[in-house]
Amino acid sequence: MASAAEHDAMRRALANALRGPRGVNPQVGAVILSPAGDVLAEGWHHGAGTPHAEVDALSKLDPGAARGATAVVTLEPCNHTGRTGPCSEALIAAGIIRVVYSVSDPGDHSSGGAARLHEAGVDVEAGLLADEGSALLDSWLAVQRLGRPHVTVKWAQSLDGRAAASDGTSKWITGPAARADVHRRRALADAIVAGTGTVLADDPALTARADDGSLLPDQPVPVIVGSRPVPADAVVRQHPRAFLQYPGDLRSMLDDLRTRGIQRVFVEGGPAVAASFVREGLADELLVYVAPVLIGGDMLALRDIGVSTIAEALRLRVTGVQNLGDDLLIVAAPRPARGRNPEEGVA
Amino acid sequence: MASAAEHDAMRRALANALRGPRGVNPQVGAVILSPAGDVLAEGWHHGAGTPHAEVDALSKLDPGAARGATAVVTLEPCNHTGRTGPCSEALIAAGIIRVVYSVSDPGDHSSGGAARLHEAGVDVEAGLLADEGSALLDSWLAVQRLGRPHVTVKWAQSLDGRAAASDGTSKWITGPAARADVHRRRALADAIVAGTGTVLADDPALTARADDGSLLPDQPVPVIVGSRPVPADAVVRQHPRAFLQYPGDLRSMLDDLRTRGIQRVFVEGGPAVAASFVREGLADELLVYVAPVLIGGDMLALRDIGVSTIAEALRLRVTGVQNLGDDLLIVAAPRPARGRNPEEGVA
Repeated sequence: MASAAEHDAMRRALANALRGPRGVNPQVGAVILSPAGDVLAEGWHHGAGTPHAEVDALSKLDPGAARGATAVVTLEPCNHTGRTGPCSEALIAAGIIRVVYSVSDPGDHSSGGAARLHEAGVDVEAGLLADEGSALLDSWLAVQRLGRPHVTVKWAQSLDGRAAASDGTSKWITGPAARADVHRRRALADAIVAGTGTVLADDPALTARADDGSLLPDQPVPVIVGSRPVPADAVVRQHPRAFLQYPGDLRSMLDDLRTRGIQRVFVEGGPAVAASFVREGLADELLVYVAPVLIGGDMLALRDIGVSTIAEALRLRVTGVQNLGDDLLIVAAPRPARGRNPEEGVA
Repeated sequence: MASAAEHDAMRRALANALRGPRGVNPQVGAVILSPAGDVLAEGWHHGAGTPHAEVDALSKLDPGAARGATAVVTLEPCNHTGRTGPCSEALIAAGIIRVVYSVSDPGDHSSGGAARLHEAGVDVEAGLLADEGSALLDSWLAVQRLGRPHVTVKWAQSLDGRAAASDGTSKWITGPAARADVHRRRALADAIVAGTGTVLADDPALTARADDGSLLPDQPVPVIVGSRPVPADAVVRQHPRAFLQYPGDLRSMLDDLRTRGIQRVFVEGGPAVAASFVREGLADELLVYVAPVLIGGDMLALRDIGVSTIAEALRLRVTGVQNLGDDLLIVAAPRPARGRNPEEGVA
């Protein structure tokens, strides 16, 4: 059981974590407590290549000052020698006798710290304020689990699945509440992806905006997929953040975005880009804004996704259906067993 | 204020109405009450060309026996000379001094009975048990209002608006709960419409069936649109009711169905037939069963509906969204002002 002092220390550690940058490494905070429960030192991770939070905290103490102390950390101490040595060994060497952490390390290479500490006779307690710890690390954990940034693919469509009328007009299929929801979600993403086709046809700003058109405080990096040049007068060039452009290989694009610390990608790229992400199994979440309107014709909101027979159809798990003004937002995730359970379709 | 005896009499009149056939004329029932509130006679409409309910009831009384009596009728007495004379005149001639009815007559030619009665000094009270009266007459009233049978167009689609994969396979896009809902609704219709394309491709039974595959008690008449012949071994030939076939003009088809007493038409005809009804403004209600699945490709659930620019898109009023197992049922009605309010689209 964690003590009251350890609870307080974990809250301080969570706050410390946010002092570090959000990047390729997780945001982690640490507090070193004396046996009496007094705060001896605090630390956090300052970014890739710099000491981890525990080591940052220990570095603020005189040698020997941590002997018999407790380390309170938001993430399980690592057991991995990368650009820095394993935190588990550093804690053991410093004479720490108890470690309390919030969230287990899911990394293939870095996990095992708790076991190593335990093996060395350190008392280990996991899961303190785990909800808060998970929320803090959510995006980073998703990246660890997926091996790439988390991808949300959004599109707006008529009830019959069209994105535009046959002459290409499409503006405001959905209403103001749906559009406001999209902008709010854009602001939560690290990057917003559109295809060159959409950039050339619609000249989108790719910004996250408030109802009055003003920019929200957080702006995703605009990312453009496709090799056609972005016109000199494209509105996206006025985006507060410089755009990135990639020729079209989505996996290498996501790999590169990951190294830039981008953890959440919001794809709004038009029917072809949306279909590419879905087809390649790179869509983790789908946001489909459905307007109460029929359009007919051939301007589809989602192009071909490589399904040739009904057993290959991509089954979804719907996690939410929400009214937004006259529109519906359907939030869904692809089910993992794509095409493996054809009998599911004839239940 | 209607008396307790009149309430009781209206309940009897509603029950009497159901004794008549459902056809081109409404089902109507009547009760004649003595000044003391005793039932003197009852009647109902036996079908087109036969006396209306009030006259049927009066015909069971000796001449003069209705003098000073009250007529309780489920529908406003008519004021129209068709194959029978106006009921308002018959009631006046019989010496009826008070008429209580449930639902007003919305017919252009037949309405005005209440005004005529009032003019002749008859005490008239409208709206007794109006909900029950409306429910009884709902289909017939819709036909009066529309000038043709009420049309429900149903389709099942993937979230992205496809009805099938590119090889044409489509069976069971939606799940068992959605399919059971469709069969329940088929049984409420008088006719079920499919195109010859669907008949040739899918060989549907066009029956309303229970979960175990057995036939429900009420079966809609199968109606086939298109001039290609129905194969000799088509399953629809085993339908308990003989199918009707029409070459393709939907308005004349609906006119003919109306003369056959068909008031509710359920269109399940496939993407081309659905689009025809929508395009011609003949869809009064849409039932869209949306399965949580993506298919992509070009096998659309709704074909072209004649919309060339976004301002012409057919805006819908969604009246219900319902979960059916993993599927969603969206119930909607086209908004009347199609294409007239382009500014509505840019709100």
